[in-house]
Amino acid sequence: MTATRAVITAMEVRDVRFPTSDNLDGSDAMNPQPDYSAAYVILRTNASDGLRGHALAFTTGPGNDVQAQAIEALRDHVLGFDVIEICADLGGFSRRLVYDPHLRWLGPEKGVMHMAMGAVINAAWDLAAKRAGQPVWQFLAEMSPEDLVGMVDYRYLTDALTPEESLEILRRAEPGRAERAAALRSSGYPAYATGPGWLGYSAAKLQRLAEEAVADGFTQIKLKVGASIEDDIHRMRLARDVVGPDIRIAVDANQRWDVGTAVEWMRRLAAYDPYWIEEPTSPDDILGHARIRREISPIKVATGEHIANRVVFKQLLQADAVDIVQIDAARVGGINENIAILLLAAKFGVPVCPHAGGVGLCEMVQHLAMFDFVAVSGTTEDRVLEYVDHLHEHFVDPVRMRQGRYQSPSAPGLSAEMHTESLDEYAYPNGPVWAERGA
Amino acid sequence: MTATRAVITAMEVRDVRFPTSDNLDGSDAMNPQPDYSAAYVILRTNASDGLRGHALAFTTGPGNDVQAQAIEALRDHVLGFDVIEICADLGGFSRRLVYDPHLRWLGPEKGVMHMAMGAVINAAWDLAAKRAGQPVWQFLAEMSPEDLVGMVDYRYLTDALTPEESLEILRRAEPGRAERAAALRSSGYPAYATGPGWLGYSAAKLQRLAEEAVADGFTQIKLKVGASIEDDIHRMRLARDVVGPDIRIAVDANQRWDVGTAVEWMRRLAAYDPYWIEEPTSPDDILGHARIRREISPIKVATGEHIANRVVFKQLLQADAVDIVQIDAARVGGINENIAILLLAAKFGVPVCPHAGGVGLCEMVQHLAMFDFVAVSGTTEDRVLEYVDHLHEHFVDPVRMRQGRYQSPSAPGLSAEMHTESLDEYAYPNGPVWAERGA
Repeated sequence: MTATRAVITAMEVRDVRFPTSDNLDGSDAMNPQPDYSAAYVILRTNASDGLRGHALAFTTGPGNDVQAQAIEALRDHVLGFDVIEICADLGGFSRRLVYDPHLRWLGPEKGVMHMAMGAVINAAWDLAAKRAGQPVWQFLAEMSPEDLVGMVDYRYLTDALTPEESLEILRRAEPGRAERAAALRSSGYPAYATGPGWLGYSAAKLQRLAEEAVADGFTQIKLKVGASIEDDIHRMRLARDVVGPDIRIAVDANQRWDVGTAVEWMRRLAAYDPYWIEEPTSPDDILGHARIRREISPIKVATGEHIANRVVFKQLLQADAVDIVQIDAARVGGINENIAILLLAAKFGVPVCPHAGGVGLCEMVQHLAMFDFVAVSGTTEDRVLEYVDHLHEHFVDPVRMRQGRYQSPSAPGLSAEMHTESLDEYAYPNGPVWAERGA
Repeated sequence: MTATRAVITAMEVRDVRFPTSDNLDGSDAMNPQPDYSAAYVILRTNASDGLRGHALAFTTGPGNDVQAQAIEALRDHVLGFDVIEICADLGGFSRRLVYDPHLRWLGPEKGVMHMAMGAVINAAWDLAAKRAGQPVWQFLAEMSPEDLVGMVDYRYLTDALTPEESLEILRRAEPGRAERAAALRSSGYPAYATGPGWLGYSAAKLQRLAEEAVADGFTQIKLKVGASIEDDIHRMRLARDVVGPDIRIAVDANQRWDVGTAVEWMRRLAAYDPYWIEEPTSPDDILGHARIRREISPIKVATGEHIANRVVFKQLLQADAVDIVQIDAARVGGINENIAILLLAAKFGVPVCPHAGGVGLCEMVQHLAMFDFVAVSGTTEDRVLEYVDHLHEHFVDPVRMRQGRYQSPSAPGLSAEMHTESLDEYAYPNGPVWAERGA
């Protein structure tokens, strides 16, 4: 008997949607009725371990089929490829996808096709970490600085960050890795709560949820703003009354404003001591963010969930345009590009406070925040990871919160795997939940 | 008998691909083997005039199916809508697509979904201009400044360009409109030739085509560069030898370089007097282009064919990062967003030299260049429109060149309509051309 070479034998893509718009969960100034959805990918192999790689791209409902089709377009980059080779060279794997010349034309490195690459790259990481028997945060945090640098695509970065500088950053953080991993395991990673502040919620619901968040141990909450200044002042005052002066209240405009409007609006909210303004304007507007930041100081400026790639993050940092870098697990080209962004943030000394929520974004991005703490920035000071209590029940290894902190995952992989029952029940348009609604 | 209200009754989407990689036509440093392709859209109505709206998104082959699927996702924004209302308010129509909150999540305003919106918006313009019995350039050039301003989405622009400033620009150009339109009709719009310079061509072919371009009346050619500096020096010298010192030679790196590499490379090519360097680095790198421009002056910096939207163009201008703005007919959100970009360029006094080539890009973008001349910038000084002699035979109203100049189209519409035979023959994967190849 000869040993069979382990190859990727199938890539399954699922269109899964949750009818979250029923309760206006997730509603904001630009997304009034989202149905949180996943273009979900499963990589299967013929290896005897039976392990599979799972990940997803996140959307808000309509268009999730386009996102799924974009993942399908990557089939030829995956099927038949050697599992051991992919897992041993995730840097090369990610570059092979990102530099496909035909698919690159559809971005480049942005939008539907880039998110599709991110999902497939993340699924490969999930598989690799499972094969190593480690949660992704630990899998990353135990890599050598040299191996981590090999994961990064430095194209377009070298005017701001070189491989040598990256090695220095990573080596500086090497000594305390074990202690910080132990600290993570015992006390978790700090979080903040977005749940109270969705724009569609009533005043009573806002106050009740804000109160609960503080009781649960969160030291920061976030309110959606941007539809009406009077309403925002009212809601900001309600929230401040409930949480008191010591809890940080961040606000989030979801790209609603022009540069001038952002400055005026935030000056009017300043009396209620907002901690940061998130997505004040277009995620593409580096110079706009820089001007807003200069003009509303000391209120901080945060953005990132819609930043397409490392090149835009690089410039936000070069232009002193942000106080907070908000990475997202499913927007850019997967874990590889997020390692680049974490290194950029470390180089410029700007804290990373990841975006989460949606479907599975908390599950995936917690690994990156924890890796950053253990092996990159080496600190949790002024860092908080977004938390939304939402759809976690669909995941095999859901996030676990205790006293306002994410508990470090211990199961191998990226925590992106959903229950088969959930994939089936919420399948769009033919799963029972949607068939009933006549989707 | 009551009159039937004219509505859009069908949106037909076609995946059409041309096997251009056979001859390395279109090959460059990032696109070694493109098969020029179109995700082609036809809007049909029940109006008795039988007119249809045609447009396309351009891709390089694989992934064209994803692009087509993204157009399909816009079906609900089109089907059943009143034709007269859409044609009377193309500004409102484009904003309705761009601000669909769910589809916006897939960009925002970038990549596959934004190009899909551009295609559908352009098809609506084609229909509207046909109903008016005018080529699009004239249809635009006869609109009042107020109506043109109503076409533009000023969100994210007002820190650089307001509606009032736009009105001023357009009113300043009003007096000479008729004379300039007449000049266009008699002598056309200046062009430059990219045909000679594809990276995959031999030295002999490069020299022969460069010679022919000059004989044809072109005063500028363009060479692809970026794969090997020795090779680029060699090809630049060959070209300069053939065309002499008075013909402008632009070079195009198709995003191949990091910022530092771009500066070093262009300093080595400087001896051969390159006129502009196009796409020296990532299209997202505003600050990078600004630095390259400062460091290689007086060589000009040009970019735009991969710039996702007006927000990035705005910043390229704010940051003094480009000497030349290269609009593309099929990358951004259609004619509406291109009007915004033309106005931005006029505000900052930067010439627009559109990107063309591909499939139908020459046909479509000539209308925008001509509109700019007649009603926006009012000049062709230092403006040249890219020309590639390529796939025009598939179009019902192909571009017409005379002595290195585009002749103004006179047929109604956007010139994007392809012959039915071409749509059928090159249909992917089941048209005869592809079926034969076993696609």
